[in-house]
Amino acid sequence: VRELFECDLEIFPLATGTAANSLAIAAMTPPWGGVFCHEDAHIQRDELGAPQFFSAGAKLIPLPGAMGKLDRERLAVSIAEVEASRGTAIPASISLTQATEAGTVYRLDELQAIGELARRHSLGVHVDGARFANAAAALSVSPAELTWKAGVDVLGFGATKNGALAAELLVVFRKELAQELTLRIHRSGHRFSKMRFLSAQFEAYLEGDLWLRNARHANAMASTLGAQLQAAGIELLRPVEANVVFARFTPVLDEALRAAGFLYHDWPIFGPGAVRLVTGFSTKIEDVETFCRAAGAVSSKAGAV
Amino acid sequence: VRELFECDLEIFPLATGTAANSLAIAAMTPPWGGVFCHEDAHIQRDELGAPQFFSAGAKLIPLPGAMGKLDRERLAVSIAEVEASRGTAIPASISLTQATEAGTVYRLDELQAIGELARRHSLGVHVDGARFANAAAALSVSPAELTWKAGVDVLGFGATKNGALAAELLVVFRKELAQELTLRIHRSGHRFSKMRFLSAQFEAYLEGDLWLRNARHANAMASTLGAQLQAAGIELLRPVEANVVFARFTPVLDEALRAAGFLYHDWPIFGPGAVRLVTGFSTKIEDVETFCRAAGAVSSKAGAV
Amino acid sequence: VRELFECDLEIFPLATGTAANSLAIAAMTPPWGGVFCHEDAHIQRDELGAPQFFSAGAKLIPLPGAMGKLDRERLAVSIAEVEASRGTAIPASISLTQATEAGTVYRLDELQAIGELARRHSLGVHVDGARFANAAAALSVSPAELTWKAGVDVLGFGATKNGALAAELLVVFRKELAQELTLRIHRSGHRFSKMRFLSAQFEAYLEGDLWLRNARHANAMASTLGAQLQAAGIELLRPVEANVVFARFTPVLDEALRAAGFLYHDWPIFGPGAVRLVTGFSTKIEDVETFCRAAGAVSSKAGAV
Amino acid sequence: VRELFECDLEIFPLATGTAANSLAIAAMTPPWGGVFCHEDAHIQRDELGAPQFFSAGAKLIPLPGAMGKLDRERLAVSIAEVEASRGTAIPASISLTQATEAGTVYRLDELQAIGELARRHSLGVHVDGARFANAAAALSVSPAELTWKAGVDVLGFGATKNGALAAELLVVFRKELAQELTLRIHRSGHRFSKMRFLSAQFEAYLEGDLWLRNARHANAMASTLGAQLQAAGIELLRPVEANVVFARFTPVLDEALRAAGFLYHDWPIFGPGAVRLVTGFSTKIEDVETFCRAAGAVSSKAGAV
Repeated sequence: VRELFECDLEIFPLATGTAANSLAIAAMTPPWGGVFCHEDAHIQRDELGAPQFFSAGAKLIPLPGAMGKLDRERLAVSIAEVEASRGTAIPASISLTQATEAGTVYRLDELQAIGELARRHSLGVHVDGARFANAAAALSVSPAELTWKAGVDVLGFGATKNGALAAELLVVFRKELAQELTLRIHRSGHRFSKMRFLSAQFEAYLEGDLWLRNARHANAMASTLGAQLQAAGIELLRPVEANVVFARFTPVLDEALRAAGFLYHDWPIFGPGAVRLVTGFSTKIEDVETFCRAAGAVSSKAGAV
Repeated sequence: VRELFECDLEIFPLATGTAANSLAIAAMTPPWGGVFCHEDAHIQRDELGAPQFFSAGAKLIPLPGAMGKLDRERLAVSIAEVEASRGTAIPASISLTQATEAGTVYRLDELQAIGELARRHSLGVHVDGARFANAAAALSVSPAELTWKAGVDVLGFGATKNGALAAELLVVFRKELAQELTLRIHRSGHRFSKMRFLSAQFEAYLEGDLWLRNARHANAMASTLGAQLQAAGIELLRPVEANVVFARFTPVLDEALRAAGFLYHDWPIFGPGAVRLVTGFSTKIEDVETFCRAAGAVSSKAGAV
Repeated sequence: VRELFECDLEIFPLATGTAANSLAIAAMTPPWGGVFCHEDAHIQRDELGAPQFFSAGAKLIPLPGAMGKLDRERLAVSIAEVEASRGTAIPASISLTQATEAGTVYRLDELQAIGELARRHSLGVHVDGARFANAAAALSVSPAELTWKAGVDVLGFGATKNGALAAELLVVFRKELAQELTLRIHRSGHRFSKMRFLSAQFEAYLEGDLWLRNARHANAMASTLGAQLQAAGIELLRPVEANVVFARFTPVLDEALRAAGFLYHDWPIFGPGAVRLVTGFSTKIEDVETFCRAAGAVSSKAGAV
Repeated sequence: VRELFECDLEIFPLATGTAANSLAIAAMTPPWGGVFCHEDAHIQRDELGAPQFFSAGAKLIPLPGAMGKLDRERLAVSIAEVEASRGTAIPASISLTQATEAGTVYRLDELQAIGELARRHSLGVHVDGARFANAAAALSVSPAELTWKAGVDVLGFGATKNGALAAELLVVFRKELAQELTLRIHRSGHRFSKMRFLSAQFEAYLEGDLWLRNARHANAMASTLGAQLQAAGIELLRPVEANVVFARFTPVLDEALRAAGFLYHDWPIFGPGAVRLVTGFSTKIEDVETFCRAAGAVSSKAGAV
């Protein structure tokens, strides 16, 4: 991992993304600290307060932001407001998600701007990298550039969504956090007596850039999926930059596809009819095409009416 | 206290409003629970995470709302969103402030609407009543109507801002919460071995409606203050309904008043030039008039230019 | 699992024993609660405060007890003392380990006596069953008898030490605890998106009583190991009832065995020279015999001197 | 306070001893930390887990010790055991009570020996000084010698039991702890908006050594009480060194005294018939004598039989 990230660092194999996120945040945020994050972040919407649990009470400060990304200016205003308040929280860290929950990707300059802001306010920077591989594949930028060189202190380097059984790697660039993390991992029941079954997965994952090849494949499938849906007249709700496609399905289309046996998630926070389609390391081009043909058939029939 | 509120209840004398708020919220909110509150609430902006600390991690869900009040419709939407989310929090309680941080007062029908909504979703209702006396005085409605009859489960009945040394009374209408509160109070260092010094204050406070008379006086002073400032051409930023006046001071006016020795707080969250002026049980009409004359003098001079 | 335990119940697959223990305890113990346990229990000596973390501060009350077991009389005295104290904790639960950390096994009547005591004081009963299979194999008593029929509310049914990769099953007999456990598991990062990889292990584990056959084998190996060491004149420090052997090695013996490449743990809390030897599902009789021959050779030579 | 303690330091006025103890311990003990204390300490037996609450889960490690005092040798052994264990806790601090819960007083050399041990293991040292004044009066040693010069980092300097309404002073010698303490006090509801009512008490308390004069009086009353009881043939259970007397009352004596209207606490942890008699700043010599005469009358009558 040190070679991959071109620096000295510490790693902790874990089994879930929530554990990785919460431990990273707790390591950088005291109980009275504030964590700035996007309002759609996994830590804010999906983890049932895990960051508060691990940090003994830290406060998430959720911010709106176009395309699922934290906006540097909006972030700066919020930090200033919290600093000025009489007791909201003591600003402590920024958590961002790469690739984002909206399927978009922070560009390198966006990351650097946030990293620079964090440094100015002495805030820690955490990256929820459940889809880090997809972001790295999308940007063709080195892992080092995307992390510590841009000011990232801790990365949750996900593998579960990209081919592993249940394996995440907490990558700690700010090494002085490592000792306390060892204790937090022990104390939260995330220390595996048979850790070799996690580690073994990462050996395979990193060898021959399997992680990147898997992610490139997933991204390509999403790109094709998005393009074919759009060609079929279906509205995409977010730019397709990684391995997630957000589209708007009419009730007729939705019903027809589900009747045909296709499974996907509604995504109501992106508006009525919004659905989320995720591709992965094992998605086959035939399946994408079958799905798009089915969607196109309904869509064109509806259009004909 | 039972007589005053016309019902059976339990009370806990405490020394700070933050303790009262946090204990009340913790009694009704599990660690994974969500607490709906106004975005300017004391629990959200001023207590450095005390509700999270006492509840072992509950999440505040701050909402915008005109005039410092929670809006029933906005609240209903937010409750539905949190219920629908995959893991924001489990909705558990609503906390409102009466009189509000904006110096306004929830009308009885507004309280009842929120109480009814809470009941429908099985949420607890907490009232931060640091200025409850001022609200009761403003509305001329009985304490019972303003609390349990409207669906309030726990009230922090403030005295510190209304004549007492450091005394708040946690009034628990949902009596089954009382036993656990006893333990939480013990465990958080808020059990006083010489509690009689707190209780004695409340005997005096309640006797002959001293609490209400103090509050009426403070409200009257605020009303006069607001009227005279307005008469002097100074903009009021919120309606004056209790004992707090928010006004906009020009830099010239601000500088002149401070130079003359007047002390008050800037209130930047209400916009540039915003200040907060608070009256109390001991505010004298002469002092109000002196202040307003001084403000008027600067203001009219500036107007002449 | 319902068939195996002959009752209705809920299960939660987890990956570590510490998670299983802490979640079970937190489900039955409020932050101000006391957990009675043996002073050598894993929760007391090995988990770096995990039970306190998950329960938001509950207090372990460690008790001495011969052969690594909680003694019913000693336990009754301690419960009475804590109840009488002015603020040690509110007695909430009993946690026992089966098979114990001393390699011994609670007999059915011992379990029943503790269960009856718990019921009388309305305490929850948790069994840390990291080695439950070994206890069941040793006692030839049904899992139902060893758990809910004796008053056990929650069992951590371990598989990690008995053939699985990293798999424990939280078995909840008091079903009303299940809903909250779901939230606690989510919030502590122990909910696996690919839980099927845990569940699959349990299918194999339970099929054809593999769990019991593995444990019987491990127990038999320990029994042989203990007998052969004793035959070689080496002192055993605890009766061998499951799959763990505690022996006293002289410095000469210890050095010789380690020099020969054997690996085992010192166990200083059992006195000078104490070592812990653990057998497992994959221990081969040849390896036991090789080890005992090596030990015997050194031992007899030393005796000759 | 700086003058009194002859050094630079920070102070925090608080209203309860439990708050002072818990905040001091939390400031020096991480969630995974261990706090060594006497098994009869107030933090262990009387605060319902307050230290765990404030520290987010630290573990108290209660130790036996003659005369209510931590024994340096026993303490050293326990520290070594915890350090050697695989996960009991990370040793973090020592908390001792001066004067102790047994009414005894640590001599200066005893304090220094513990301070030296703490330094060697990098542990913080907290003194629960609810009766610090009585200890200082008993020893005729300067407050500086009894605290920072002996290695104490934080002292809870009690006044509530020695004349004040509800006032304790957290005296922080290790000044780098002060900033975080400010936040912890805010967040736990122990920051008083009208702190002047606490501070005013300390001005009076310290002026003209009122604190020491009060304590000397209380100690003298206890000394007389103990001597007269002993003269009346009543067994004292602990040496009388400060303002607390532990005696053994026969059932007959106990019944007679209570029938005569005297109020005192049973103290069953010191054996059958044990009672605790506490003198204070306001105890009158006449009252002591009346009590002793009453006790003597019953006692001699019983003896005559």
